[in-house]
Amino acid sequence: MKDIKVSSVGERALISRLSEIFKAPDGKEKGQEGVLIGAGSDDCAVLDLKGEDCLVVTTDMLHRTTDFPEEMTPWQMGWMSAAVNLSDIAAMGAEPTGVVMAIGMPADTGVAFVEELAKGMQACAEFCGTAVIGGDLDTHVELTITGTALGRVKKSQILLRRGARPGDLVCVTGYTGSAGVALEALQSKKPVSETILKTLFEPIPRTKEARKLAESGAATSMMDTSDGLAMSLYDLARQSHVGFRIRENTLPILREVREFVSSSEKLTELALYTGGDFELLITIDPQKLKKVQNICNLTVIGECTKYETGIVLESPGYKLTTIEQRGYQQLKAEPVDKSS
Amino acid sequence: MKDIKVSSVGERALISRLSEIFKAPDGKEKGQEGVLIGAGSDDCAVLDLKGEDCLVVTTDMLHRTTDFPEEMTPWQMGWMSAAVNLSDIAAMGAEPTGVVMAIGMPADTGVAFVEELAKGMQACAEFCGTAVIGGDLDTHVELTITGTALGRVKKSQILLRRGARPGDLVCVTGYTGSAGVALEALQSKKPVSETILKTLFEPIPRTKEARKLAESGAATSMMDTSDGLAMSLYDLARQSHVGFRIRENTLPILREVREFVSSSEKLTELALYTGGDFELLITIDPQKLKKVQNICNLTVIGECTKYETGIVLESPGYKLTTIEQRGYQQLKAEPVDKSS
Repeated sequence: MKDIKVSSVGERALISRLSEIFKAPDGKEKGQEGVLIGAGSDDCAVLDLKGEDCLVVTTDMLHRTTDFPEEMTPWQMGWMSAAVNLSDIAAMGAEPTGVVMAIGMPADTGVAFVEELAKGMQACAEFCGTAVIGGDLDTHVELTITGTALGRVKKSQILLRRGARPGDLVCVTGYTGSAGVALEALQSKKPVSETILKTLFEPIPRTKEARKLAESGAATSMMDTSDGLAMSLYDLARQSHVGFRIRENTLPILREVREFVSSSEKLTELALYTGGDFELLITIDPQKLKKVQNICNLTVIGECTKYETGIVLESPGYKLTTIEQRGYQQLKAEPVDKSS
Repeated sequence: MKDIKVSSVGERALISRLSEIFKAPDGKEKGQEGVLIGAGSDDCAVLDLKGEDCLVVTTDMLHRTTDFPEEMTPWQMGWMSAAVNLSDIAAMGAEPTGVVMAIGMPADTGVAFVEELAKGMQACAEFCGTAVIGGDLDTHVELTITGTALGRVKKSQILLRRGARPGDLVCVTGYTGSAGVALEALQSKKPVSETILKTLFEPIPRTKEARKLAESGAATSMMDTSDGLAMSLYDLARQSHVGFRIRENTLPILREVREFVSSSEKLTELALYTGGDFELLITIDPQKLKKVQNICNLTVIGECTKYETGIVLESPGYKLTTIEQRGYQQLKAEPVDKSS
């Protein structure tokens, strides 16, 4: 029997297998009295700081060919490398406390290029109220950047993927599908505005919005939408054991995105299944909606249902279709070759 | 004028340039009231946890072709990826509190290979009393692993690269040159023992020893020797503003390493200028030497002198030669092409 390849397993399944290795047989993470949330189940791992706070930590590896469209400047690559991690810190409701950056680069990379990278990283970190506090440099065949971000949040305020209950309202910050349309425009060489391109090239971690949502006490669960809205709904559903009914005509989509596409099917495809938006997906206790309505640009897009109901999209004509579990996955699960 | 390439600048010089970007014009790191030690000056960045403790964090990127000799097993690659980071945590005198691992791998990597990697990572983390608490997986042209380790230490006990004073004793844990001779044996296809190979393939982070040294109150500065003893001496010298007189005949070298080489010049070369040993280099207040003598296998190899005296090696015949600033650097500084 041939060894199974990672490409035939998929990212989330492989994470789940590795998470078992990082756990003791009794299910408790090994050697760590202080681990509140371990590998694989949330945007960040969570460590107990013994007082009223906990520490959250996340890491993300990016590569030039797969993660940075050709049109990006080195400053934007730096910004993006910090943003992907700071968005995960925000998703926990935490205040970022520092970022470290490991950079592998071809030996013929210009010093000016690396300095621009660093300036972009620092700019994004500063935007989120923190800084790049350390890192590592080495040579590598392809520009590869691994950022790790740390954050701090009161245990009473931390927001996890679990916690949503049937009846809670589902909300997103900002707009969905903007980064997806930017990528499609680049690939098809169609013109789009600077605003749309920036959602893809310089995504804004929702640090301030997330802190306010965490402080409000109204949110029951939260994560970011960087892998696409549909994937995030599936992740929340699995951890919270709920289903979702999403109302198609409430999805917040920029006018330019609506005008870019030729059909409503295509629009729904963009809004649900493309990644890169770095918005927050939040579930809200309906009794406390007032507390969060003025915090930021927040749209109610549906509600939590029972787990058994699944994850469905309600059309303007009240037709229900299942939202599929697909979007951005680094390790795509390909059909297994049955003959092997 | 052509853009200067990173390969003509060298790792330490480039780190120093980037550290300027990660600092505000007034020299204080931006946006971070809580940063005690920022990018570029120590084994770890240090964050103030507001109480009596601080948090230390370090990151290191490894690649299959440049960091893992062909003979290494996937389990050993995993162990090594955790060890390089946990050694940096030890070097601060800190207790490790968690490791996160970002893994980029070719799509045709076997699941069994990745599971062995994960087991090696977890084994090393457990050996150091901690665990892998999170990570990231994606596909990449070459196996690339970025580990990030966190640790915690009382502010009153933290050991930095600065702090050594003229008159302090210089000590190292374990032996020097063992990993270097292992690498040379592999390259020249000469036989060496399993013990020697293991120093290269499964380096032991000196976590427990480091904690005891930090608790003793006798150490004035500390770092690890992963880039080689000479490079570490230069790093300590720069941060502590001291010089060193190292006594050649006190360097702790395994008998097998002595027997492997043909000349005493070659032996000194191995002991000073090869990396991979992951031992601790410590300076000790001579009044307090007794407090640390029984902590672990610790050898006094010389003493701190005035900065102006430089870093010198004293031969058994009392001849002094300058120890050169060279060893393991990821970005090797090559001679600049004057014609460009």
